[in-house]
Amino acid sequence: MRLRNWLFHNFREVSQQFGFEEVDFPVLESEALYIRKAGEEIRDQLYCFEDRGNRRVALRPELTPSLARLVIQKGKSVSLPLKWFAIGQCWRYERMTRGRRREHYQWNMDIIGVPDVTAEAELISSIITFFKRIGLTASDVGFKVSSRKVLQEVLRCYSVPENMFGRVCIIIDKIGKIPMDDIRKDLQSADMSEVAIEELLQILSLKSLAKLEEKLGASGEALSDLKQLFSLAEKYGYSEWLQFDASIVRGLAYYTGIVFEGFDREGKLRAICGGGRYDRLLSTFGGDDLPACGFGFGDAVILELLKERGLLPQLNLQVENIVCSLDPELQGAASTVATILREKGQSVDLVLENKPLKWVFKRAARINARRLILVGKAEWQKGMVNVKTLSTGGQLETKLDELE
Amino acid sequence: MRLRNWLFHNFREVSQQFGFEEVDFPVLESEALYIRKAGEEIRDQLYCFEDRGNRRVALRPELTPSLARLVIQKGKSVSLPLKWFAIGQCWRYERMTRGRRREHYQWNMDIIGVPDVTAEAELISSIITFFKRIGLTASDVGFKVSSRKVLQEVLRCYSVPENMFGRVCIIIDKIGKIPMDDIRKDLQSADMSEVAIEELLQILSLKSLAKLEEKLGASGEALSDLKQLFSLAEKYGYSEWLQFDASIVRGLAYYTGIVFEGFDREGKLRAICGGGRYDRLLSTFGGDDLPACGFGFGDAVILELLKERGLLPQLNLQVENIVCSLDPELQGAASTVATILREKGQSVDLVLENKPLKWVFKRAARINARRLILVGKAEWQKGMVNVKTLSTGGQLETKLDELE
Repeated sequence: MRLRNWLFHNFREVSQQFGFEEVDFPVLESEALYIRKAGEEIRDQLYCFEDRGNRRVALRPELTPSLARLVIQKGKSVSLPLKWFAIGQCWRYERMTRGRRREHYQWNMDIIGVPDVTAEAELISSIITFFKRIGLTASDVGFKVSSRKVLQEVLRCYSVPENMFGRVCIIIDKIGKIPMDDIRKDLQSADMSEVAIEELLQILSLKSLAKLEEKLGASGEALSDLKQLFSLAEKYGYSEWLQFDASIVRGLAYYTGIVFEGFDREGKLRAICGGGRYDRLLSTFGGDDLPACGFGFGDAVILELLKERGLLPQLNLQVENIVCSLDPELQGAASTVATILREKGQSVDLVLENKPLKWVFKRAARINARRLILVGKAEWQKGMVNVKTLSTGGQLETKLDELE
Repeated sequence: MRLRNWLFHNFREVSQQFGFEEVDFPVLESEALYIRKAGEEIRDQLYCFEDRGNRRVALRPELTPSLARLVIQKGKSVSLPLKWFAIGQCWRYERMTRGRRREHYQWNMDIIGVPDVTAEAELISSIITFFKRIGLTASDVGFKVSSRKVLQEVLRCYSVPENMFGRVCIIIDKIGKIPMDDIRKDLQSADMSEVAIEELLQILSLKSLAKLEEKLGASGEALSDLKQLFSLAEKYGYSEWLQFDASIVRGLAYYTGIVFEGFDREGKLRAICGGGRYDRLLSTFGGDDLPACGFGFGDAVILELLKERGLLPQLNLQVENIVCSLDPELQGAASTVATILREKGQSVDLVLENKPLKWVFKRAARINARRLILVGKAEWQKGMVNVKTLSTGGQLETKLDELE
């Protein structure tokens, strides 16, 4: 819990530094919110139920659909752009394995109302700010960046129907996770010719914008978006964190433009975070579309990475004072002492039973107390207590009203 | 969200001042964890489902059963007493009305391993510390206190079977919520004679410990526990917040000793919080019993009370700086400026599109920015930006490396 609070505190501080407002969404949503027809992993693993009123509901697998719903609901009452962040628990229903739990937390930042790549650049900047805060450098982690428009341009070239686009993205996202033969088979069943498939796979292997320009020409949006992003990265000062990688498409159906994912340079772990532009999500929920982009950043992979790099912080329980009466009759007096200290802003662990001193010292060590305050009969009659500084062993009789 | 964060921050700070450690529990639990046979409201309104693996599960209605499970699981690996707090979302399935939502948050503090009333006194002290922090006084709110042992002694007197105890408590908790005739009928069906019922109802109307002593005698645990609590309250300095009220039994089956609830003195609202001792809860889950007590404090009633008293804090969005380029070509330069400020710990809302100045000033006002930083061509060529202090309207050309 201390570790989780530390992580969330960093998420929150970075988000606020970037001028984002915190929002939250229901844990239980209507199942319909997540029904998309692209064969996403997130859909197959939906943690869904029928409730007592026979409604189909689901524990949210992600936060973006709820965000879309909220944006539509707010309508014209909010002024754009919205810069929102959320830290929320998400669920999946699947067999649990190492590093794949049924519940995890996700930090989301979203910008609604900005069509320019400046928004994606700002989001990536905030993640990098977070990485730096927790001690990670560009030699530990980086971002792979592409645009779904690359794919779109290839598919258009080979006259693949528009409505196959989401499905093709999901298939491509599985490259490296399932055998290439299966990928090819899946693409064929998505109305792609063999020639188109081979051309697509070749383009997906590209790792430089120059090569991409050779293939697609200089005029398309895919290339101009990506060029702008890399140019902004220079101004932000994070170029060394960024690389173009055409194989990145992300596994959610709704992305439409730039997509990116954070990865560890040793290549041992799953993606650390991922996001992109989703300009047409709102209309799928019956709202008017607004330009939008965002990312999700889970709590699991980043903690594994920090552990591996020895960067997990030491977060011990720490209570400043432990207060103990030396006599059962003085239990009330000890309460008085604890109250005085707490009213002065100090934290106090009050010993609530009559315990031997040995026990009290052990407890003091466990809670990393700075001082032990003993309430004994002789001192109490003089309105005093015994204050022991635990690091030095020094002790002092102190008047109650001089305690601080 | 700002209000919720403010409330939770106060819950957390008080808990830590009292030396409590934060814990958390699963949102989805096995339904069996909540099956008790006492006809509790919390049981009837359980938000339960069958999951995809045909298991009966429930969105947690409260945190205490999860806590019990965790304590049993930890077993001898933790040193007693445990002082734990949690802030968690809880659910009920019922028709929604004003002030009764399907989801709410609860702050819980629990002490495991202390048999003495010192533990209850400490818990009540922490709630009072919280009340004071947020501006409430003893003339706004108070605590009604009793002990389930009062009831136990009466029932024993009239030979009511032990296993009826929990059920009788639940019935009594409904006094004032359903007609007295129904209460009497329910008590009869719980094996109570008419004489016993009338005696019980009379005792429940008592508001002073002296009267209770007349009825029950001075030797019982009920009276000695309550006397000790009121004596400790004096030492803590919160006597004026506390009153004995035999009608308080609380609506959960598992309490065994002292029970208390926070109330608003104007009597307009439901209980603000409630808690008590539950020394025999662990054995109902198959563990060894440990002395334990705790409270639950919801987020709904307290916010209503603060609203009514005009004590809700003004919590505006506040971003320190707004940074804007005056020329589309300088968007990258504005990113550089934003990054410099953020690296110095400042919060910055970066304008991500080319917008008229009028729009920028409006946004600056909405986010309560202290400074507007404009990146214009002439200044930028000199390595400078225009820094406008919004409260005074004063502006200053500032070198980039002198920005702070």
